[in-house]
Amino acid sequence: MRFLHTADWHIGKKLQGYDLLEEQKQVISDILNVAKEEQVDAIIIAGDLYDRSVPATEAVELFNQLMIDWNLEEKFPIFAISGNHDSSIRLSTGTPWFSQSDFFLRTQFAEAFQPITFGDTQFFLLPYFEPIAARLYFEDDEIRTIQQAMTLVVEKMQTLFEPNKKQVLVSHFFVTGSSKSDSETKIEVGGLDAVSGDLLKDFDYVALGHLHNQAALHQENARYSGSPLKFSLSEINQKKGVWIVDLNDRLQLTFRELTPLHDIQELQANFKELLSPAFYQTVNRENYTQIYLTDRTIIPNMMNQLRKIYPRILGVERVNGRLDTITTKQSVEMKDPKSMATTFFKEITDEPLTDHQEKWLTETLQELMEME
Amino acid sequence: MRFLHTADWHIGKKLQGYDLLEEQKQVISDILNVAKEEQVDAIIIAGDLYDRSVPATEAVELFNQLMIDWNLEEKFPIFAISGNHDSSIRLSTGTPWFSQSDFFLRTQFAEAFQPITFGDTQFFLLPYFEPIAARLYFEDDEIRTIQQAMTLVVEKMQTLFEPNKKQVLVSHFFVTGSSKSDSETKIEVGGLDAVSGDLLKDFDYVALGHLHNQAALHQENARYSGSPLKFSLSEINQKKGVWIVDLNDRLQLTFRELTPLHDIQELQANFKELLSPAFYQTVNRENYTQIYLTDRTIIPNMMNQLRKIYPRILGVERVNGRLDTITTKQSVEMKDPKSMATTFFKEITDEPLTDHQEKWLTETLQELMEME
Repeated sequence: MRFLHTADWHIGKKLQGYDLLEEQKQVISDILNVAKEEQVDAIIIAGDLYDRSVPATEAVELFNQLMIDWNLEEKFPIFAISGNHDSSIRLSTGTPWFSQSDFFLRTQFAEAFQPITFGDTQFFLLPYFEPIAARLYFEDDEIRTIQQAMTLVVEKMQTLFEPNKKQVLVSHFFVTGSSKSDSETKIEVGGLDAVSGDLLKDFDYVALGHLHNQAALHQENARYSGSPLKFSLSEINQKKGVWIVDLNDRLQLTFRELTPLHDIQELQANFKELLSPAFYQTVNRENYTQIYLTDRTIIPNMMNQLRKIYPRILGVERVNGRLDTITTKQSVEMKDPKSMATTFFKEITDEPLTDHQEKWLTETLQELMEME
Repeated sequence: MRFLHTADWHIGKKLQGYDLLEEQKQVISDILNVAKEEQVDAIIIAGDLYDRSVPATEAVELFNQLMIDWNLEEKFPIFAISGNHDSSIRLSTGTPWFSQSDFFLRTQFAEAFQPITFGDTQFFLLPYFEPIAARLYFEDDEIRTIQQAMTLVVEKMQTLFEPNKKQVLVSHFFVTGSSKSDSETKIEVGGLDAVSGDLLKDFDYVALGHLHNQAALHQENARYSGSPLKFSLSEINQKKGVWIVDLNDRLQLTFRELTPLHDIQELQANFKELLSPAFYQTVNRENYTQIYLTDRTIIPNMMNQLRKIYPRILGVERVNGRLDTITTKQSVEMKDPKSMATTFFKEITDEPLTDHQEKWLTETLQELMEME
């Protein structure tokens, strides 16, 4: 058995307000190319297919088309589960028909105990679940954590293991000791939702989803594939791609990197440099860009000027702080209203007040004082 | 060819705020029983499967289960289209897999020209569409109305007619001369969206959706199935059910009525009668009930008292009007605030003000006057 392992597509996700649909279309289409090149027998998608329980129609359209291409056109068997971002009920639409062409999409807890035997391997598809689902299924009110639930889940799965087959688990949760990124929402701190890696040791491979970093976990038989795209600045140095998993002899893992339409980059420079062709022609202006500004002065209309050169700005940070200005609390308290307004005008426009402006300011302030 | 024709399920619809999901589950399950009794070869659903483009998960769950029962369990071939209430993109999820088991659900205009030959019959599935879809498809900017579009649609379909087959059109629009009910939203007045029945004369049968009254159209070869439930008070006297269409010899149509979990009824009586067991034990209190009240006096806490007996009240109407009270504009204008408040209190509580209350009222009104 040789398969491709991906997860956490989050179709429909936005990055700081930028729509990632084109990026997702390109990178997920590339996954299909990798599957063809690597001549895998099947593809695993370990949850969070969509970013939201009610995805936009454009997201639905993209996912539907991808699955038509992969399964009906290219005839790849697909083993997929729902993640915490998916609506298990909405995502279940059509699933009984999908399996007619070896597209196994599982969204209900109980389905984890109907392994799919494919070639020499049993695939156990365990969708994301809350402890309540395990409590109801096992009729055991003591189950409060995912760890408790997983002890029973694995026990039950083991009774279904066929001795001459290999066993692959597809699941979507946090394994203790893994490291997190900024873009994974809803992951609890404190370990209530954490599963011990030891529990998973009897599977030949565990294809995990949930964490967006493919290097988040170091366990011989278990991997996160990570997301195919960087979803936050904290992921800037993460490799993004998919695992090629070969179980034919001993377990062999190869990570195939993917190239995004637009990467994330950080630029540090002063404002003048950032706007000069000599500088910006040396970088990829189309990338998602985090800017570290070395200037300390106030720059009027800064964002608009930067966006003309860098259309995908994630944020601008002042690395040296800003010059002490009227905007600091202390300096504000020390000044009377007129000199405060005069300084502000000077800083923003780089011009002093004209006589006319000063007269208007004086009169207006006077009127305001009288109203008090 | 012998098939069942239904439409306008509007799964997830509410009736004056009352959730109809249980009613829909029961009545649509009954349709399956009719299909089995009548031994039809196929089932047609002519659009508006859901009530909204983004249905609630409960609605999705019900529809998914119904289709599993009908198509995968009971093996009925299904010919279905999207209506104006459905999201054509969301509803298209899974459709390429559905056809593997003869469940043909069409949501795109272009699919109308891929007739499905089933037995001795060609089924043309034309989903609800706007003129823009026809403009793009036919590359003809002159198309402004559904009637103009349908001229071209029928022309094109006729080129696909096979001489030894019968032709059935499934569509979702308003046919000129049909009569409307209150529960059909988005049907334009003025005929811009109306199709002439003449255009449809070359089909052996036209299975229509859109209008909720099965008797809305009288044309030999075309019928609305109507909705399976009454969706408004104006439909109180409409028969609800499905058509059994037999094309084996000449066209034979049989209307099979359905019984809802709760019907709509109208009650006319005075308040005292409505609350007396002698009266309400003679009616089905669980029905959706429109009340025509013969009383003319103000009745304090009326709705709450009525709802205790009749849990599904659609509305209460005073058939004899109300006694002239402070609520009429003229009487309000004639009174000073104090006598107005006193009269109102008397009418609502049937008690005069106590001395204490009158004192409080006088003082409060005085305070209010002074503030002006």
